[in-house]
Amino acid sequence: MKLYSYWRSSAAYRVRLALAYKAVAYTTVPVHLLAGGGEQHRAAYRALQPQGLVPALVDDDGTVLFQSLAILEYLEERYPGPPLLPAGSRDRAFVRAFALALACDVHPLSNLRVLRYLEDPLGADEDARGRWIRHWIGLGFEACESMIARRGAEGPFVCGPGPTFAEVCLVPQLYNARRYGCDLSPYPGLLRADEAARALPSFAAAVPERQPDAPAGGGA
Amino acid sequence: MKLYSYWRSSAAYRVRLALAYKAVAYTTVPVHLLAGGGEQHRAAYRALQPQGLVPALVDDDGTVLFQSLAILEYLEERYPGPPLLPAGSRDRAFVRAFALALACDVHPLSNLRVLRYLEDPLGADEDARGRWIRHWIGLGFEACESMIARRGAEGPFVCGPGPTFAEVCLVPQLYNARRYGCDLSPYPGLLRADEAARALPSFAAAVPERQPDAPAGGGA
Repeated sequence: MKLYSYWRSSAAYRVRLALAYKAVAYTTVPVHLLAGGGEQHRAAYRALQPQGLVPALVDDDGTVLFQSLAILEYLEERYPGPPLLPAGSRDRAFVRAFALALACDVHPLSNLRVLRYLEDPLGADEDARGRWIRHWIGLGFEACESMIARRGAEGPFVCGPGPTFAEVCLVPQLYNARRYGCDLSPYPGLLRADEAARALPSFAAAVPERQPDAPAGGGA
Repeated sequence: MKLYSYWRSSAAYRVRLALAYKAVAYTTVPVHLLAGGGEQHRAAYRALQPQGLVPALVDDDGTVLFQSLAILEYLEERYPGPPLLPAGSRDRAFVRAFALALACDVHPLSNLRVLRYLEDPLGADEDARGRWIRHWIGLGFEACESMIARRGAEGPFVCGPGPTFAEVCLVPQLYNARRYGCDLSPYPGLLRADEAARALPSFAAAVPERQPDAPAGGGA
């Protein structure tokens, strides 16, 4: 498989986590979101991914896949073990709702293209854009923390004895939240799940800084 | 089942479409998003849906479900016929990617709470907010139209001989697009799928104007 990825993209990070956890071999094809006006806008990439967003995954038979949550479901169907969805329909609905609360209602609002639109034409400066990001992350984390609390799960994972789509979406969103200086102290349940997941070797291998396109000293 | 719904919410509209198509009986519990500061923010509703967003679905055994796409997957598992997902993994990935391109990258950007934040504190007036909405709808529709074109599907549906999650997300998004005056002429494939889906009696029953909480003469 080939994963068209940018080291710092949270949607690409989700797919890396699932591939690593399921031990599916893949090659990274870097798509630099900032260099040269953005490689994701080039015709060759848009021929794969019509939105001009990362990631895209090309399976060995040539199947082109995109939208990280659609890729997660595809990988779950094709590589069911180890699972990233629990066994029962109710638990699966819970895990998917948790993942979607981040993937739909938090992450798209702090996408690069949205931040650019906020800057121009809307004229929001860097401070205002930072507040925007932290605002939506805060609302999303509050809802996810309350989902964990209500469920009264034994922990440390959000649902069951191992990571699921919940951690696959949570870990990259917490990475972003730290980058933007969010106060994480109100979310002990999220931090517990994040820590447990990141302690897994597969999760550790997928971190942005360990990707082939990550700059040596961090930064953009 | 009980569906906590607002007649004009596209996320609630998606769930109504799936319930109607699968002929699952349910009662509507209206949650008025604009009256009295927004009924979705009341403690009784947030005890069901921790994000304070509609919809929420309560199954007969008391299971509380939310996030429209997680509800669609749950209904697909519990009521597999008639299906709203195709049979093969690749087709399912295609349909889910199409649905998510709208549900993640278009709809959350024109959510009520986002439009309110654009107004205050960001100071975007009604015109600027309208341009914002049409901008993201246009990008999303362009990508979805190109997904249909590439696939070279026989039509009129996006994938296969009947509606799928693709139409379940597309029909409400086109309803919104018309409301906001988007030019839809560049999207013949989307319009064809929308027309075919809306011609189904189950899809017709789920339209906003036919819901118990819809005002007699339209409007907010």
